Amino acid sequence: MEQKWFVGIDLGGTTIKMAFVTTEGEIQHKWEIPTDISQNGELITPHIASSLKQKLQQLGVSKDKLIGIGMGAPGPVDMENGIIYEAINLGWKDYPLKDKLEKATGLKAVIDNDANLAAIGEMWKGAGEGAKNLIAITLGTGVGGGIIANGDIIHGVNGAAGEIGHYTSIPEGGSPCNCGKSGCLETIASATGIVRQAMEQLKETSNSSLDGLVKQKNKLTAKDVLDAARVGDKLASTVIDQTCFHLGLAVANLSNGVNPEKIVIGGGVSRAGDILLPRVKEYFQKYAFPRVAMGADIAIATLGNDAGVIGAAWLVKTKIG
Amino acid sequence: MEQKWFVGIDLGGTTIKMAFVTTEGEIQHKWEIPTDISQNGELITPHIASSLKQKLQQLGVSKDKLIGIGMGAPGPVDMENGIIYEAINLGWKDYPLKDKLEKATGLKAVIDNDANLAAIGEMWKGAGEGAKNLIAITLGTGVGGGIIANGDIIHGVNGAAGEIGHYTSIPEGGSPCNCGKSGCLETIASATGIVRQAMEQLKETSNSSLDGLVKQKNKLTAKDVLDAARVGDKLASTVIDQTCFHLGLAVANLSNGVNPEKIVIGGGVSRAGDILLPRVKEYFQKYAFPRVAMGADIAIATLGNDAGVIGAAWLVKTKIG
Repeated sequence: MEQKWFVGIDLGGTTIKMAFVTTEGEIQHKWEIPTDISQNGELITPHIASSLKQKLQQLGVSKDKLIGIGMGAPGPVDMENGIIYEAINLGWKDYPLKDKLEKATGLKAVIDNDANLAAIGEMWKGAGEGAKNLIAITLGTGVGGGIIANGDIIHGVNGAAGEIGHYTSIPEGGSPCNCGKSGCLETIASATGIVRQAMEQLKETSNSSLDGLVKQKNKLTAKDVLDAARVGDKLASTVIDQTCFHLGLAVANLSNGVNPEKIVIGGGVSRAGDILLPRVKEYFQKYAFPRVAMGADIAIATLGNDAGVIGAAWLVKTKIG
Repeated sequence: MEQKWFVGIDLGGTTIKMAFVTTEGEIQHKWEIPTDISQNGELITPHIASSLKQKLQQLGVSKDKLIGIGMGAPGPVDMENGIIYEAINLGWKDYPLKDKLEKATGLKAVIDNDANLAAIGEMWKGAGEGAKNLIAITLGTGVGGGIIANGDIIHGVNGAAGEIGHYTSIPEGGSPCNCGKSGCLETIASATGIVRQAMEQLKETSNSSLDGLVKQKNKLTAKDVLDAARVGDKLASTVIDQTCFHLGLAVANLSNGVNPEKIVIGGGVSRAGDILLPRVKEYFQKYAFPRVAMGADIAIATLGNDAGVIGAAWLVKTKIG
C-alpha cells in the first residue's frame, strides 16, 4: 500500500513551519512560510492552503496522499471545538481555526497549543522515548510547557494546562511578568530572565568578565552568561545556579503532582545542557518526593525546532488517522 | 430490572470502611470492620470476604446483586496489575491485592490509592460536582491528594502522582518530613503541622491564649489553634495565615500545571473551612496564572469519610461496569 502522510504545522509569530510526516513520525519534507498577521490573522489559513497545494505540485504528489492536518498555535485552545481562545500576537480571539483550516484546505484538521505539541513530539520521537507520563519545558525567550499523562496531553478546563512558565517561583518581590503576576519561572529561567538576573547582579559589582562584555557590546545575551559560568565566572555561576535551583524546584513540585517518567528540557537555552542539566537534576532530586524522584529521568530535548510539526502529526495519527 | 450494587471499600490503618453503593453513587448500606494488621496484613482480604457474606445474609440479599468491588488502599498502586507497591503500616510490599480480593470474595475487583479514590468520590458525588479536571487535597494527620484530568485519575509512572502533601513548600530550613525530605506541605498544613508551627511560635512568646491552654492541658490540637485564630489571637492568626499562604501557593502552582475546574479541600482540618477558605482563595488568586485562576473554583469537600467508598464504587462503574 502506498505510504500516506500527515501534515504537521507549527504556527509561530514570525514563521509557519510545515512538514509532511510519515505515519511513523519521520519528516519527509519540511519548509517554512512567513506568518502574515495583517487583517487580524485572516490570511494565515489561505496562505497555508496555497503553500500546501504548491508543495504537492512541486513534489508531483496527489492530495490523496495526505491523511489530515495537525496544527499547533500559540495560545490556549478549545480542542473539542477547534477554537483558539486567544492568540494575542496574531490578533485572534475565539478564532475557529479548525473550521477555517478545513474549509481552506479541504482536509480534516485538528489543532492544539504549540507548547503541548512540542511536548507530544518529544514524547513520540524525541527525548521522551515513548514515555506516557512526561513534562516538557521549553526555555526560550519565554518559558513554555506541556504535560502528558496516560499518553495524552492535559488541557485542563480552559486550555491553560502546562503553563509551567507561570509557576510562581518567587512569591514576594519577584520580577513582573507579562502575564500580570510577578516572580514567574519565566522571569528567571528564560533567556530574558537569565540576562535580567545578570544585569541586576552587575549593578552590585563589576567583578565579573560580563562587566567588560556589556561595556564593549552594550548588550548581554543568555549565551554570554552561560559561557561565562562555564569558565568559572563567579557572578555568572551564581545566576546559573539560581536559575537551576528554580527550575529544579518547579519541575520537582509539578512532578510531585503528576509523577512523570521523563522530564524533557528544550528551547534555545537548553543548548547549554552540559552546564544546566547536572544542577537541575541535583535540585530535582532534593525537592521531589523520593518515589517521584526514583521514577523520573531528566533529559535535553532532541528534536529542536521539529518537535512542533512532529507533535502536530501525532495529533492527526491519534485524533483523525 | 433489579437495582444492582457496587461494593466500595476504603482500607485504613485502623478500620476498613465498606459500603453497598447504587450505580448512581448513592450509599445504601455502610459499615466498618477493624483492620487486622497481624500476619503481614494477610488476614485483611479474608476478613473483608466474610464481612461481605455476613452483611448479605443480614440483609437477605443475594450475591448476584453485587457487580464488583472497588477498593482504596494507603500506598502507591500499580493499577494495571492490581498490586500495592507498598503499604508500610499494613506490612504489604508488592502485594497482589486485586487477585487476593477476587479469590477471597469470588467477585471482580479493581483497586487504587485511597487518596485518589477520595478525589474521585468528591468529583462524582461531592463538592467537585462532576468537574472532569480536579485537584483534591486532604488535610488530616498528614496531607494527601489526588489529581483528576479528563475525568480520570492521574497515576503517573509508578503510582506516586497526587503526592500533594510532599510538595516542597520550604526549600531551605523547613521541618523534616516522614518522607525523608524537609519543608513538605504536610509539615505545615496538616493538623500536626499546624500544631508544630504554633508550638514553635510559643517558644518565642507567651503572648497568646494558646500559652495558657498548653500549660493547662499539656497539649495542643489543630482545632485549638484554628479556634484561637477565629477569635483574633495574633499568634494563632499568624500560624493560620502562613498555613493558608503555603496551601494557596502549592495549589496555585499545581493548577498552573493541570488547570483544574475544581479544587476540593477535605479532611479533618477542612472542617474549619470558614477561616481557611477565604485566605486560601486569596493566595490562590495571587499565585495562579490569570487564566488558571479564572477557571478554578475552590470548595470544601462535602462527602467526609464517605468519599473513599463512593470513589471506590466509581472505580467499579468505570473499570468493571
